[in-house]
Amino acid sequence: MSVYLRDIPLEDAKERLKQALEAAGLWGILSIEQISLDDGALGRVLAEPIWARISSPHYHAVAMDGFSVRAEDTVGAQPSTPVVLAYGNQAQYVDTGDPLPDEFNAVIPIENVESLDSGREPAKNPRSPKSIRIRESVTPWSHVRALGEDIVASQLVLPAGHVLRPVDLGAIAAAGHSKISVSGKPRVAILPTGSELVEIGSELKAGDIIEYNSLVLAAQVREWGGEPRRYDITPDQFDMIRKRVLEAALENDLVLVNAGSSAGSEDYSARVIEELGELLVHGIAVRPGHPVILGMIHAGKKTVPVIGVPGYPVSAALTGDIFVEPLLARWLGRQQLEHSIVKAKITRKVVSPGGDDEFMRVVVGNVNGKVLAAPISRGAGVITSLVRADGMVILPRGVQGLDAGQEVTVQLHRSSTAIEKTIFCIGSHDMTLDLLAQHLVGYDRRLSSANVGSLGGLIALKREEAHLAGSHLLDPADGMYNISYINQYLSGIRVKVYGFIDREQGLMVKRGNPKGIESLKDLAGPDIRFANRQRGAGTRVLLDYHLNLLGMSKDAIMGYNHEEFTHLGVAAAIASGRADCGLGIPAAAQSLDLDFIPLFQETYQLIIPVVHAESSLLEPLFSVLQDRHFKQDVLAMPGYDVKDMGKLIAEV
Amino acid sequence: MSVYLRDIPLEDAKERLKQALEAAGLWGILSIEQISLDDGALGRVLAEPIWARISSPHYHAVAMDGFSVRAEDTVGAQPSTPVVLAYGNQAQYVDTGDPLPDEFNAVIPIENVESLDSGREPAKNPRSPKSIRIRESVTPWSHVRALGEDIVASQLVLPAGHVLRPVDLGAIAAAGHSKISVSGKPRVAILPTGSELVEIGSELKAGDIIEYNSLVLAAQVREWGGEPRRYDITPDQFDMIRKRVLEAALENDLVLVNAGSSAGSEDYSARVIEELGELLVHGIAVRPGHPVILGMIHAGKKTVPVIGVPGYPVSAALTGDIFVEPLLARWLGRQQLEHSIVKAKITRKVVSPGGDDEFMRVVVGNVNGKVLAAPISRGAGVITSLVRADGMVILPRGVQGLDAGQEVTVQLHRSSTAIEKTIFCIGSHDMTLDLLAQHLVGYDRRLSSANVGSLGGLIALKREEAHLAGSHLLDPADGMYNISYINQYLSGIRVKVYGFIDREQGLMVKRGNPKGIESLKDLAGPDIRFANRQRGAGTRVLLDYHLNLLGMSKDAIMGYNHEEFTHLGVAAAIASGRADCGLGIPAAAQSLDLDFIPLFQETYQLIIPVVHAESSLLEPLFSVLQDRHFKQDVLAMPGYDVKDMGKLIAEV
Repeated sequence: MSVYLRDIPLEDAKERLKQALEAAGLWGILSIEQISLDDGALGRVLAEPIWARISSPHYHAVAMDGFSVRAEDTVGAQPSTPVVLAYGNQAQYVDTGDPLPDEFNAVIPIENVESLDSGREPAKNPRSPKSIRIRESVTPWSHVRALGEDIVASQLVLPAGHVLRPVDLGAIAAAGHSKISVSGKPRVAILPTGSELVEIGSELKAGDIIEYNSLVLAAQVREWGGEPRRYDITPDQFDMIRKRVLEAALENDLVLVNAGSSAGSEDYSARVIEELGELLVHGIAVRPGHPVILGMIHAGKKTVPVIGVPGYPVSAALTGDIFVEPLLARWLGRQQLEHSIVKAKITRKVVSPGGDDEFMRVVVGNVNGKVLAAPISRGAGVITSLVRADGMVILPRGVQGLDAGQEVTVQLHRSSTAIEKTIFCIGSHDMTLDLLAQHLVGYDRRLSSANVGSLGGLIALKREEAHLAGSHLLDPADGMYNISYINQYLSGIRVKVYGFIDREQGLMVKRGNPKGIESLKDLAGPDIRFANRQRGAGTRVLLDYHLNLLGMSKDAIMGYNHEEFTHLGVAAAIASGRADCGLGIPAAAQSLDLDFIPLFQETYQLIIPVVHAESSLLEPLFSVLQDRHFKQDVLAMPGYDVKDMGKLIAEV
Repeated sequence: MSVYLRDIPLEDAKERLKQALEAAGLWGILSIEQISLDDGALGRVLAEPIWARISSPHYHAVAMDGFSVRAEDTVGAQPSTPVVLAYGNQAQYVDTGDPLPDEFNAVIPIENVESLDSGREPAKNPRSPKSIRIRESVTPWSHVRALGEDIVASQLVLPAGHVLRPVDLGAIAAAGHSKISVSGKPRVAILPTGSELVEIGSELKAGDIIEYNSLVLAAQVREWGGEPRRYDITPDQFDMIRKRVLEAALENDLVLVNAGSSAGSEDYSARVIEELGELLVHGIAVRPGHPVILGMIHAGKKTVPVIGVPGYPVSAALTGDIFVEPLLARWLGRQQLEHSIVKAKITRKVVSPGGDDEFMRVVVGNVNGKVLAAPISRGAGVITSLVRADGMVILPRGVQGLDAGQEVTVQLHRSSTAIEKTIFCIGSHDMTLDLLAQHLVGYDRRLSSANVGSLGGLIALKREEAHLAGSHLLDPADGMYNISYINQYLSGIRVKVYGFIDREQGLMVKRGNPKGIESLKDLAGPDIRFANRQRGAGTRVLLDYHLNLLGMSKDAIMGYNHEEFTHLGVAAAIASGRADCGLGIPAAAQSLDLDFIPLFQETYQLIIPVVHAESSLLEPLFSVLQDRHFKQDVLAMPGYDVKDMGKLIAEV
């Protein structure tokens, strides 16, 4: 059994694929279609350049409603010395778009003309007077769109490889074309394989994996100009996969097999490809996504490339970006898609395996004029890291990591304008932040919240890496929230403290409370496994405060060092049986169907540096805090109070 | 007859429309559809937020192929002091994705395990040994994807108003949804009106206008998420337009009438709308595009907004951008589209009517580290100005213009990366530049060429506003090309001069040469109308040189002051009868079916500052100059010689 894949560098893998495609005559446009010039042409790629067949305008066109004249006849006309021109011979009425009559060379707009029936009387019909009087001369070709003003016959209108936008369609029509040659859409088969996979919408049991990679890959292919076809799930059986791959190759230009690309006991993709053709690459030094397979198979008289796509969703989507998009670009004859890039400072130290190209997802925001990139989860299984990402930082092979504050180049997935509308909220987690994010959308703002605990939020404010922090740090000395911590950690920064919510804290336990837990004292029981929050989290401070009041030792609590980073993380640990109880908020308990034992009330506030509190970026935040609908949505969750929401509590 | 429209400011027009839509209950999402979660959901807009129904993973999932163990049992394992675990009770084989067995809390990857049949012998089947030996301890939850690692049930996955991308579809599936609520696609009727309009592909006579605005508008609507419907052309007859508008309103959510929105004799849109409902706005202070109409009409029980779209193609497309896109965004519940912005220096002085918001198209490039925005044609009829534009500069009302070098904000229509791959070529026009542009596409470069004549090109180089200039300036003193001009105009800038093409220059005349022109001497004939090139153009210098040799006076030539800016412009003037002859190149004559009388051979060179000649940006240019296919394409045009193409002629 070959346990290890032999990872090769990304460039080498791409080069091997390119050579194999060249050898198979597949390194160019696959096919050309003649299509009608209608709005279905939008997004198609020109297979041939568009040269103008005709000029536009194709005649000298009148550009204003008015009278066509000879410029020579108007010489000398001035306000005080008008010139009168005879209708017919010296002037004729014309509408915009009319051809300029041969004998004339300029147009006078109707509003600059007095229409006369005799030399003095206004004409009854101003458009067919006996004569006109003008008080200004015109130069030749005034208010005329000369033949070829827009397009001259034979000029290049659009190059081959151009992806058609709405205005392009107009220009092609103006240049005299009614049909265009575009590259055919490459057909891409997507084959989900795996006995553990179930269709979207199935009832789930442990071990079932919802098969959605094929959905993501199909949508990518469609977005990039290909024609995807999703096949049914094939179980992990060599012969069935082999048969399905062959069938797909006959009907398509590219086959994506997902997954079975690793070296596990049921990973058949490599063997299937070896049997049906040649295995070019098995394993690429990229992260996430290294167990990629590249191969070429022979199906009837065709040779068809096959990509073995790794099973983790982030790996699968990145394999699309790295291999499928460039291949479709080549087959369509267009350039590869390009992202705008921005320079940013990375917010924290990052360690990277030096042997791989690492594709790191980041959120990007602008705080105090500095563009910041904050790394988000690097797990290959965390598809929400791609959903949340504003962009990608590529750490090339050989780079061992980054220091906090180091400059990086971010490939943006959003417009730079969207980035400027992003509010960075770093600190303690509360579920109302999700609601806040939802409400801010209506105000053209995006809330990007990172959960690092209350203290982490204050530190982020100190380092100028966030616009605001949510915090519920209790001072054991005076029972006050946040103020003493602000004084300690944010010296030199003026901040405003706003009321947000008051919430119940209590113990979450399994439905029915099987271990009969009733208070903090019970945590010391020998069979009680506790799930704690991470160091610096307000909930942990609250726990320590009350343990101290009770004179309880942390060491007496099994699981005190079991750290979760959110309330829902604690709830999930209990729901799954990893722990028996944990301190948290009732909304988290409710959402995972746990029982809740209320113990304390606590105050959760928003800490906002004055410079941000007064910025237009955060203005909508204060509108939401006053919004009745927002408050209603918060109160619909259990255990919340909004009496102080939006109130200025203190300025420090 | 109301000749003048009453233009109102853009904000006021938008506000009136908004109020009318609010009053009609049309200022929000029009409809909600439940659709299946498949790749057809791509690009649709979420009508409701997606909250996670389930966690992902929904169980503790094994993250690596290997053996599940209890972390406690591994304590003390080191390379020199291995620990042996009994299979079954202390360790069990698991594949990636399997649920972690309840009794275990960590996974050891198979490559870190020695499988044994007794304490010392390797197991025959390494996946079901009698025991395993490990040489490293593991911490709890190693190589396990904990329940909720990606998504925790009840969290916000995506907010309402989000436009779905491929990875979003995966995240929604992971969160346990198989159907989603999206906003319905607004139906938009597009009604071309005008007796002068003809369908794309029709035979043309003078005065016919190819109807392509409906194509551009339909493609815009489709791109922005609406469902367009193009109606047949309606001639300029009040009753027919009225009937068609009413019919379209019954079947659609929005009606676009194009054109008839001005105040001309056959502009019926405003009257039709007044009869069918209310006219809200007639004329908006924007340029181009001011004769816009906004109204609401009553069709059956419905109230439907109508937009009268101006007829000029640039105006029509901009009306789409300004009114249709924001309205569709509102109806779909998404944010308006946003462009990335960039700060740039405007390359020349611009005068703007202070009363209008002006939308100025610019090409953007980076020369010597400065981002430059060069204004392109401002004509409302020049659709190629939108095709060529890299972005838009908005000059707000009240701004009378810009000075050359002034900083402006450009809304980019391309990625900033594409801008960095743009080669600015400013100077003399030659048709081979179109071919060059076409060939450079294959090298991932975009050639943006502005035709300002040879001398204009040198001046642009001096002002650091171009990467290279095409020039064919003859020095009358020594018969050499370009060198003396470079010495005069580019002092202080080191440039390289590369051979490009030699080409014939001669007189273009109408097919059959009806006026019997044979040489420059004939230009002095009393009935010969000449079309000249603009001051500074190499062709004009050549003309002056030869007139001087012949002892001819410029004043003797009728049309000497008739300036055209390109060879094709001169050819078009002759083809259309505005002139009888002009000096130019045979390719231009051929493309407009003119006769050509060869007179001289001239040399057209590329002048490239050393700093650019050695840049990676221009590297592909030199590859194209060596490319056999490019030379073949040039030689396929009449009158060209490529013997010096790509040769370094001089360094000055």
